[in-house]
Amino acid sequence: MSEPAATPPRGVRLYDTTLRDGLGMEGLSLSVEDKLAIARRLDEIGVDYVEGGYPGSNPKDAEFFARMREAPLRRARLAAFGSTRRPGGDAAGDPALRAVLDAGTPVVTLVGKSSARQVREVLETSEEENLAMIADSVRHLAERGREVVFDAEHFFDGFAEDPRYALATLRAAAGAGAATVALCDTNGGSLPDAVERGVREAARALGGAAIGIHVHNDADLAVANTLLAVRAGATQVQACLNGWGERCGNANIISVIANLQLKLGVEVVSAEQLARLTETAHFASELANLAPNPQQPYVGASAFAHKAGLHAAAIAKAAGSYAHVDPAAVGNAERVLVSELSGRRNVVALLAEQGAGIALSDAEAGALAADVKDREARGFQYESAEASFELLARRSLAGYAPPFGLEDFLIVERRRPGAAGGNGDGGMQAEAMVKVRVGEALSQTAADGNGPVSALDAAVRAALAGSFPGLDRVRLTDYKVRIINPDGGADAAVRVLIESSDGVRLWRTVGASTDIVEASWLALQDAYEYWIMRWSEDAAETGSAAS
Amino acid sequence: MSEPAATPPRGVRLYDTTLRDGLGMEGLSLSVEDKLAIARRLDEIGVDYVEGGYPGSNPKDAEFFARMREAPLRRARLAAFGSTRRPGGDAAGDPALRAVLDAGTPVVTLVGKSSARQVREVLETSEEENLAMIADSVRHLAERGREVVFDAEHFFDGFAEDPRYALATLRAAAGAGAATVALCDTNGGSLPDAVERGVREAARALGGAAIGIHVHNDADLAVANTLLAVRAGATQVQACLNGWGERCGNANIISVIANLQLKLGVEVVSAEQLARLTETAHFASELANLAPNPQQPYVGASAFAHKAGLHAAAIAKAAGSYAHVDPAAVGNAERVLVSELSGRRNVVALLAEQGAGIALSDAEAGALAADVKDREARGFQYESAEASFELLARRSLAGYAPPFGLEDFLIVERRRPGAAGGNGDGGMQAEAMVKVRVGEALSQTAADGNGPVSALDAAVRAALAGSFPGLDRVRLTDYKVRIINPDGGADAAVRVLIESSDGVRLWRTVGASTDIVEASWLALQDAYEYWIMRWSEDAAETGSAAS
Repeated sequence: MSEPAATPPRGVRLYDTTLRDGLGMEGLSLSVEDKLAIARRLDEIGVDYVEGGYPGSNPKDAEFFARMREAPLRRARLAAFGSTRRPGGDAAGDPALRAVLDAGTPVVTLVGKSSARQVREVLETSEEENLAMIADSVRHLAERGREVVFDAEHFFDGFAEDPRYALATLRAAAGAGAATVALCDTNGGSLPDAVERGVREAARALGGAAIGIHVHNDADLAVANTLLAVRAGATQVQACLNGWGERCGNANIISVIANLQLKLGVEVVSAEQLARLTETAHFASELANLAPNPQQPYVGASAFAHKAGLHAAAIAKAAGSYAHVDPAAVGNAERVLVSELSGRRNVVALLAEQGAGIALSDAEAGALAADVKDREARGFQYESAEASFELLARRSLAGYAPPFGLEDFLIVERRRPGAAGGNGDGGMQAEAMVKVRVGEALSQTAADGNGPVSALDAAVRAALAGSFPGLDRVRLTDYKVRIINPDGGADAAVRVLIESSDGVRLWRTVGASTDIVEASWLALQDAYEYWIMRWSEDAAETGSAAS
Repeated sequence: MSEPAATPPRGVRLYDTTLRDGLGMEGLSLSVEDKLAIARRLDEIGVDYVEGGYPGSNPKDAEFFARMREAPLRRARLAAFGSTRRPGGDAAGDPALRAVLDAGTPVVTLVGKSSARQVREVLETSEEENLAMIADSVRHLAERGREVVFDAEHFFDGFAEDPRYALATLRAAAGAGAATVALCDTNGGSLPDAVERGVREAARALGGAAIGIHVHNDADLAVANTLLAVRAGATQVQACLNGWGERCGNANIISVIANLQLKLGVEVVSAEQLARLTETAHFASELANLAPNPQQPYVGASAFAHKAGLHAAAIAKAAGSYAHVDPAAVGNAERVLVSELSGRRNVVALLAEQGAGIALSDAEAGALAADVKDREARGFQYESAEASFELLARRSLAGYAPPFGLEDFLIVERRRPGAAGGNGDGGMQAEAMVKVRVGEALSQTAADGNGPVSALDAAVRAALAGSFPGLDRVRLTDYKVRIINPDGGADAAVRVLIESSDGVRLWRTVGASTDIVEASWLALQDAYEYWIMRWSEDAAETGSAAS
């Protein structure tokens, strides 16, 4: 597996279950609109199957499938998920099977039990009846023109307990017309060689039917288990964006795609689609309102970032010294980080990388590195606030004149009598009065807002609007607050990280203070100052040309 | 590997490199005190080697080793990290080797290059000189009584390019007296069978010397690669707490320990030490001020949590239906989650699990589940705010009387003239005036604070202090703010999650609003109300008995 095999496994198909199994993750919730957007993105990056939901279980999923019928995917096949018929019932009269048929998808994935113990203890029925449930249900759907995937729940645990029965459930599904039999490591605790052995034995037992693999990450082995299953003969891989899923998550489809393509030589998507992995992973996190994991393999913000001085120095000599693949292949990039561990070299490299066009002497770079260290000790954090870092560098140079200054401000916020009860229905009123200097001119403005930061922001923007046309296009796209020494509770220092956009570019700034309003203001000030310093002239030209 | 082997690998030793290689992680910074605390904790949970730092590279690490000499570890062996001597130099005169000797540790780990290409392109010296650098340096330390570990950097890449030379570097180290030769997958991109093959070939080439394994997670395979290396003969595993480390991190020592012990039958720690894994993982995250990863295998808050209705129902019938190991073995616990996906069953199960002592009828449980769903749509999130959830249940019952109410409030915050320049030095002043009702009594108080939330908090506490003795012991231990629909920027709704403690118990509450002050207040209100409702009478008794 270390190099692409001479005869790589062929025809591995990607099956994404983010919109169904991924939603089992604690804290994850997606609207119907979110689900539609993710389904289309999965289609674009070359996923073969998109499992959209469990129409029998909740009305949101039924609505999703209705919306998908109006605007089908371009290339991917849409799957609806359901379970085998009830014990003692019949397939034709089963409401859950009717719900998956009503979803109108070309593919239906049915989960059924492969563990004899689970059949007895959880289903509370006989082993024979479970086989009949599988066969009846699969046949019912296959006869109605559906491509059926059978998800063999608890397959690997069932195979360890009673291999004869576990294989019998697969045969029941395949014999009734399932196109693919997916082996599930439902509890996520199987080790790589158990997975390999299970896949090989299943392939032998089934003859020609296609084998799928569906594993969870409870033992931190999901991606490895998926790759080893492919090597053992699985041709459908079920996985989720960013490794979302119940408990410790499902196999991460981003890592699986990158490894299949770049390490195993199995072409599952095009090079252009591969280069969209980073953007896709972040897009999904944004829709889900989850912070992306910076350590995420291949696509994390830190995945190709170097802090250690030795490594940064080696990269300067031989690019790729500390990167296992070309970051551009997955749409990511190499980065050099500034932090207290770093010296002059990183400071200079980072400014160059950002295209700041600032030339620092050795002494100036040393002083800047020391300043970064000092401010990080007070709560600032420049690793993910490159715009604030660049401003710090500019402000350290003689002759730098900030484009504006906030002289002082006053904020009043009250909850009106009658709004008591704390129900969050917004009987609140916040107002800010500010004095802002631009050059020699001092202007005094006031504005309302939702809360103190929003009021301050609105008042400052009102003061700056006349001097900097185009600033109204700058929007906050993210606002994060963190306590720095959590033992201090509400009185501790806070760090505010702000991400801003003018619709074209994105930049990040930081503020820290014991006061959340001041910390927010410092980050906002940097956000506006950075935009004005870099792009306000373009905006003025563009703005006047366009209007 | 699926079951403990009949003759499990013996004598696998745990080597933790959190305090050196782990610190390469973006955003991670530890004080000397933090490092000392982590080193002691690693010692307590049975880690065999603790690598403490790189004394040649920074003064903080030199101070750490000085402090460790004053109070040595009880059982674990402390290691200092350094690199082989400079090209063309001599070992005796090398400043970096002197620094690791001066650290006074029983173990020294030296990194040297195993890739011929890296020797040429990065070291810019000859292959022969690199072998001499390795042998000289190892011998110099071994002759001075150190147990030497040789970290063979880029071993697996080097082995793929030029196996003869890669193995020669190992022989140079072992021949000069290295006790262990650790094979490093420095770029983290090696696949499982490449790692297995490399370990087997190294074991064959070295004869008796012990083999270590040190891998990174760039291909999402670090834990699998570590386990497969052990199966192939490695007896020292190098890894980091919580998978910290540069780029995508090192192998996660928590997952490695749990898998070795519970899955491979390799006893690396005692059962008592194993049961401290969850606590240890969270302890390290707290010291590092990093949010723990809820999805983290074995120890994450979600690792044994169930949201899906089907799974929750199955667990009610057969415990362990969806858990791969007993959560208690690693100090974790099974949980049932409340969310919009969940129905009455989860609501009732959660209240029972929390020991709330609330009996709801079916209709009441259904209404509560619907209320949770409705409030989550407005920004609240109850999955990680069990105290707010319990209050929601109590408030839904007829006859519940809240212990206090905030009638209205006014907050004034200003930055004084003269504090301009935005340097975060705190020329800020915030004051809150509140009207609080307790029973029939209405009290009006005012207080200063660091920022609006802190001032409001102080004023409310002042109003409640007389009525609820012991409330002064309640402290905020964490305060998190999130934007809920990030597109809205500063005007978007915010969610505030608060963790509180009275020194004995810990509880979490949530508030949401378009206004950060109101969202904070809702979470604070729940925090106080929960404590008063559950424990204020104990506190009054304890307080009066003690004072």
